[in-house]
Amino acid sequence: EMAKLTQLIDNEVFWAYATYTTIVLLKMMLMSPITAYFRITRKAFANPEDTASLGKGESAKKFLRTDPDVERVRRGHLNDLENIVPFLGIGLLYALCGPELSTALLHFRIFTGARILHTFAYLIPLPQPSRGLSWAVGYAVTISMAYQVLKTTLYL
Amino acid sequence: EMAKLTQLIDNEVFWAYATYTTIVLLKMMLMSPITAYFRITRKAFANPEDTASLGKGESAKKFLRTDPDVERVRRGHLNDLENIVPFLGIGLLYALCGPELSTALLHFRIFTGARILHTFAYLIPLPQPSRGLSWAVGYAVTISMAYQVLKTTLYL
Amino acid sequence: EMAKLTQLIDNEVFWAYATYTTIVLLKMMLMSPITAYFRITRKAFANPEDTASLGKGESAKKFLRTDPDVERVRRGHLNDLENIVPFLGIGLLYALCGPELSTALLHFRIFTGARILHTFAYLIPLPQPSRGLSWAVGYAVTISMAYQVLKTTLYL
Repeated sequence: EMAKLTQLIDNEVFWAYATYTTIVLLKMMLMSPITAYFRITRKAFANPEDTASLGKGESAKKFLRTDPDVERVRRGHLNDLENIVPFLGIGLLYALCGPELSTALLHFRIFTGARILHTFAYLIPLPQPSRGLSWAVGYAVTISMAYQVLKTTLYL
Repeated sequence: EMAKLTQLIDNEVFWAYATYTTIVLLKMMLMSPITAYFRITRKAFANPEDTASLGKGESAKKFLRTDPDVERVRRGHLNDLENIVPFLGIGLLYALCGPELSTALLHFRIFTGARILHTFAYLIPLPQPSRGLSWAVGYAVTISMAYQVLKTTLYL
Repeated sequence: EMAKLTQLIDNEVFWAYATYTTIVLLKMMLMSPITAYFRITRKAFANPEDTASLGKGESAKKFLRTDPDVERVRRGHLNDLENIVPFLGIGLLYALCGPELSTALLHFRIFTGARILHTFAYLIPLPQPSRGLSWAVGYAVTISMAYQVLKTTLYL
């Protein structure tokens, strides 16, 4: 009988990856309710059907507008996508390349911390270079993992 | 001799994940030709080189504009990215955590159905709260899977 | 004792996937510094805190603007996300479905080449249909892999 996949993955690095990836994806998902919160409190919507409960005709149309706070959260959300998608893919491959657990944990923890800091730096907002630096740290961690993957697997 | 990876993955939950993830990613990919369809029929383009066949100089420039139908599809596409990326990552980890097949299928089917409904609600468009509810259902399924992953793997 | 996961993945197709996915994700990540380069040289920023070093009050406000070169890179970046996310997910599942190594390499190489061409076509920019064709080739490769995944795993 085949062993179950869950038994085969007897690999602490993989489970560390699972934990940190889930945390960082949940953090990214949090941007959606934050966007909704600002859209509702600032009364700034993108779709006519979203303003139907606020009034009819011309009186509802004025809520179809952009708002600086809404746009700020949306930029933070898009920046998450641009940076967490590479972490998702490269991090998985890195975890399967057999790195030392302590090295892998260092990568996953720094990336996750940097992306949480990035969100605070973007939404508060903190003065630069807070946001720039937290972005750069997460970026550098992903490059470091990508280097390990290519060193281990390079197959062109 | 090593067993092949494909034999090792003797895991119905994993193959169910593969099927539903592929379906929901194909659905997301469908947003690209729909965007192209509206750009062409509405003559609303983002790049000067895309309007070259429609005329020269000033006569082509008037097609460099936004159109409400094009922007609607693009918002739907971005919402897909924001929600399907977490499903892709968290769903994979969930499938590897050894859930019951029936529970896993319930999660995958509800998520996939909710995202298909979300697209119809966005593009027709249906009156609210159709789009809001279909978004919330997919979001809740992802949170439920994330909870299972963290309960199984928590490794900080 | 359990074999290590890294030994279990004795699978050339999987390592080819790892290499090409890492390359194509690094290519996508390159869009961030290119965006930053154009924001700085064109002095076109999205956040007030980013313009603080350029002047105070009204004199800094004029740098909060969109610039055609910046917007072009951002559109290229978003197009990468829309197309590389499906490749990331569907490509992984395809690699686990046991395709022939030569067929899999053909898929991965053509996709990676098409996305690199797409970036050049977008940023130079090359006249159409360069960008459209390179997009369509990457799209078709992903559809072909999705077809293989569904043929192998279909489990509804």
